[in-house]
Amino acid sequence: MTSEQTPSSPIHDQLAELHREYSAIHDGEVATYIPELGKANPDWFGICVVTTNGGIYEVGDSRQEFTIQSLSKPFVYGLALEDHGRAEVLGKVGVEPTGDAFNSISLDPVTGCPRNPMINAGAIASTGLVEGFTDDARLRRILEMFAHYAGRELSIDPQVYASESATGHRNRAIGHMLRNFGILAGDPMPVVETYFQQCAILGHCRDLATMAATLANRGVNPLTGEQAIRGEYVESVLGVMGTCGMYDYAGEWLYEVGMPAKSGVAGGVIAVLPGQLGIGVFSPRLDSKGNSVRGIRVCSALSRRWDLHLFNRPGIGKAAIRLRLNGAEYNSSRIRPKAEAAALREHGEAIQIIQLQSNLVFATAEFIVRELTELNGLESVVLDFRHVLSVNESAGHLFHDILLRLHAAGVTVVFTGVEKATSFRRLMRARLGARFEELFRTFEELDPALQWCEDRLLARLLPDLPDTSIAVTQYALLDGLSREEVAVVQSFFERRTYQPGETIIRAGEPARELFLLSRGLVSVYLPLENDAQKRLATFSPGMAFGEMAVIDRAPRSATILADTEVSCDLLSIARLTALGVTHPKIKIRLLENLSLDLCRKLRKANREIAQLV
Amino acid sequence: MTSEQTPSSPIHDQLAELHREYSAIHDGEVATYIPELGKANPDWFGICVVTTNGGIYEVGDSRQEFTIQSLSKPFVYGLALEDHGRAEVLGKVGVEPTGDAFNSISLDPVTGCPRNPMINAGAIASTGLVEGFTDDARLRRILEMFAHYAGRELSIDPQVYASESATGHRNRAIGHMLRNFGILAGDPMPVVETYFQQCAILGHCRDLATMAATLANRGVNPLTGEQAIRGEYVESVLGVMGTCGMYDYAGEWLYEVGMPAKSGVAGGVIAVLPGQLGIGVFSPRLDSKGNSVRGIRVCSALSRRWDLHLFNRPGIGKAAIRLRLNGAEYNSSRIRPKAEAAALREHGEAIQIIQLQSNLVFATAEFIVRELTELNGLESVVLDFRHVLSVNESAGHLFHDILLRLHAAGVTVVFTGVEKATSFRRLMRARLGARFEELFRTFEELDPALQWCEDRLLARLLPDLPDTSIAVTQYALLDGLSREEVAVVQSFFERRTYQPGETIIRAGEPARELFLLSRGLVSVYLPLENDAQKRLATFSPGMAFGEMAVIDRAPRSATILADTEVSCDLLSIARLTALGVTHPKIKIRLLENLSLDLCRKLRKANREIAQLV
Repeated sequence: MTSEQTPSSPIHDQLAELHREYSAIHDGEVATYIPELGKANPDWFGICVVTTNGGIYEVGDSRQEFTIQSLSKPFVYGLALEDHGRAEVLGKVGVEPTGDAFNSISLDPVTGCPRNPMINAGAIASTGLVEGFTDDARLRRILEMFAHYAGRELSIDPQVYASESATGHRNRAIGHMLRNFGILAGDPMPVVETYFQQCAILGHCRDLATMAATLANRGVNPLTGEQAIRGEYVESVLGVMGTCGMYDYAGEWLYEVGMPAKSGVAGGVIAVLPGQLGIGVFSPRLDSKGNSVRGIRVCSALSRRWDLHLFNRPGIGKAAIRLRLNGAEYNSSRIRPKAEAAALREHGEAIQIIQLQSNLVFATAEFIVRELTELNGLESVVLDFRHVLSVNESAGHLFHDILLRLHAAGVTVVFTGVEKATSFRRLMRARLGARFEELFRTFEELDPALQWCEDRLLARLLPDLPDTSIAVTQYALLDGLSREEVAVVQSFFERRTYQPGETIIRAGEPARELFLLSRGLVSVYLPLENDAQKRLATFSPGMAFGEMAVIDRAPRSATILADTEVSCDLLSIARLTALGVTHPKIKIRLLENLSLDLCRKLRKANREIAQLV
Repeated sequence: MTSEQTPSSPIHDQLAELHREYSAIHDGEVATYIPELGKANPDWFGICVVTTNGGIYEVGDSRQEFTIQSLSKPFVYGLALEDHGRAEVLGKVGVEPTGDAFNSISLDPVTGCPRNPMINAGAIASTGLVEGFTDDARLRRILEMFAHYAGRELSIDPQVYASESATGHRNRAIGHMLRNFGILAGDPMPVVETYFQQCAILGHCRDLATMAATLANRGVNPLTGEQAIRGEYVESVLGVMGTCGMYDYAGEWLYEVGMPAKSGVAGGVIAVLPGQLGIGVFSPRLDSKGNSVRGIRVCSALSRRWDLHLFNRPGIGKAAIRLRLNGAEYNSSRIRPKAEAAALREHGEAIQIIQLQSNLVFATAEFIVRELTELNGLESVVLDFRHVLSVNESAGHLFHDILLRLHAAGVTVVFTGVEKATSFRRLMRARLGARFEELFRTFEELDPALQWCEDRLLARLLPDLPDTSIAVTQYALLDGLSREEVAVVQSFFERRTYQPGETIIRAGEPARELFLLSRGLVSVYLPLENDAQKRLATFSPGMAFGEMAVIDRAPRSATILADTEVSCDLLSIARLTALGVTHPKIKIRLLENLSLDLCRKLRKANREIAQLV
């Protein structure tokens, strides 16, 4: 800004306003069934929101620690899933909501399975499913998991733990009932003790929001990048939160708020909007169902104000195509002789370029696959993955299928940027192995991929194009000169040859001559920071290169290498100047030809820019 | 393709494979409690998937009609919501799941409210809430609504209706109980009769999938574009489907399948993935809970194979920024004098261009807003909405807030493409009224928006730039010529003046001269099909224009108009040729200057293309 002022975040201010507004609510009572919890300040009130791309917004007592209590349940359930898989865990703990209170025993009368992992019985059973050679080791694994979720080490409140352990007779009864039905093996008491400890873990709103955002982000902590839970189990953790997380308030919660959520009796609440964000609220006053009064109100208000309801989502189908081009309207940087350029303008639609982006899931892949099945007269298609953020299994499967079909139909598929789309490569490699590289061409950048397609199309359309040495009279620069005039210019030439890979022009050097390519191919490379280089153009016989630096007297801006064995005729600036004195008419013609060439390139560049913005 | 072959859709084939596989399942029984339903062929089996961008995939008996039965419930509930609003409807029908069977009476013992709209009692209450002066009018409104959802008129099966009416004593009892508690007003029997009729509506799998896709698409039928339900109520309809749609199977369903769903006793099942797609399955054999056996299996399998679980979503945050550029690396097509071009290269970062795309919801807007609050040294920002698909209320609110803050901080915000982003304009107009146009500039295209920002920046950086007439010696084309040589060229000039809006060059005409701009501004326009035109460039005094057609002797490719009062010096091709004969040295210099200009423009165009692809 012209002033030094930076605008504050409206998101922070909206949260602060909500905090102010809801601070006026004094309904509900602080939990006292664990005596230590009764010591909380009933007015504590913090809110934090963390997004899956690392935005953090916190207001009020967002760094006030409290014990997470039942908030620990879904996370420990997730660890049990990682240790045993879904089928085995489902055999011990159900996933049906129950209208009963949080501390009800609620075991299936026949199997003894707790109805779901969010009631105490199911939570204790989940803790019992966490692997560990010793009780200590089990607790350590639980704490380690929470450290990944929260992005920092969390400790256990010794007073609350002691208080919980001293009064937790009902939970001990549950432990013995679980042992009775064989849901817990061995002595159930250490498991119940671990459960008391996990409930007494201290966290604050920002931890809660980060943990929730980690679930929203397929198990990867968006602030640290650490994987807290394998992505495949996230939907199961959120699934039980969705129907059982708010006790017997589940229906109304999903209806009104529309996010999987969990509350704890110390006053914490988390809510998760998959793919988008996590919310953590702390306010110790509870309603009759054991949920934080302000916590529920804040989540409802945020859902309404920010349109966070899970069931209210815009269509995503077309969002994965960033750009569509074809080979008639957009070309590689290979500078083509006139006949080739004309052939591409006429037949280039046989080359399609589809630039993909964002997340490829079933619904976005479906649209692309449909487009691909509906194209007619296709010879090759470039699928540009450089802007793709992720590819899920089902999208990978669809691509696999359509790629094989395109191949069978004689269409060549060329990929760019797949070396960075690791999930896509892994999926393809799993399904096709080494055949992937046999069936499909891959390039890092779009430009060489497109050139490769153009070359194939041109080889079919213009099979007789000479690719060998040309005569001096064929230089475009000498167009319109008489035989005698050509001879004059030729006498000013210096002939040089280069081996494949040899440097013809080096970036940064002063420009002393322009080059006319008589035989072979040369490419222009832009040096990049990390010793890498990006190809800018390729020239074929008959063309001039290095002429721009000669015109504007700038140092060479790019490096030019011989792609093949190359012969060039060099015309130095000094000789060009001399030519202006001795043969002004010839020099005028050369400059006119040079301008013509620049003019054509500029027209093409302008056409392409119009396609791209 | 080179061959005529078009690849078949892998999605269709995956569905066909699933259909084959699950045809082998013969578990379950056809419902017989309504005698007419017992006549169904138990082997009927159809699947259809419709996506929110209009993809349709159907296999098996997907056009076999059957009665929708309980599938009618969520849709009629939605109509009740439209007629009365959420609060009033919630006062009559709850949203909590119940473990009871679908035909249980399940009324709240105190209020008499049915527990949720998916059990018969709640569904009959919902039907009673549909407005209509007569019973016929109510039924007509229900049928009209279904026609919008399905994209075709649906009829009522008279036999099934008669059978249902003849045996529906339990539902009549429910009707009287609802009347007893005052949930239904007046005679409850016509309402129960309408309920029997809505259950007997005939549809097939493709109808079901289209109806589901309409819910996935915020209430807009993706095949016809018709609004079947106001978008704000879709989340409520899906909310009750999410927790109550599959009877007492809700927890496991949300855990395993992760999509709001509803089944009907004739064997239909729908599932909805918000934003993405709808699924319709038909297979009459039911399990003990009244859900189609194959229907449930197909939805589970599709959820697993296509990763459709609602809680398993990739992060969407950064997906809404298509391109970021700044005024140093990308410029408008206004051709700048050297000093201005240099100033833009040095200070252009004060202009930021953010090209938005896709759907703007809270999480995607958050990222953009965060970027905007973190920018320093910003003078103006162009927000390009041309690729935006939708803007929801909360994103609109965030934009509103950040825009006012940027304005207060002295940053100029310029919009492009908002005239097509109707939801965004509506939101802004609702909040700002006419102030929107006062506070912010809007342009249709990026180019004039960017030029406007550049002009403002340059006016601050270079306040003394002459904007009036310049001397002949200041023409860039004449750089390096001596005073005498300039005089020679000047003698070849023809001076012309133009009024604002006057045509200087007309597209299609032959090129006879190049123009040197002495005073005023001219713009180049490309004629478009619908009498519209697109501005390609603007020139200011000292510059040459119309020179490219002179060089390549092509007809004029664009039209050039005077933006202001304009004076030009014209140099005709004939005189330029003559100059080559009489003063070759001068002509050489002119051609060198011309090449230099083209060279610079080409370098700039190439830099921009590199930014854009």
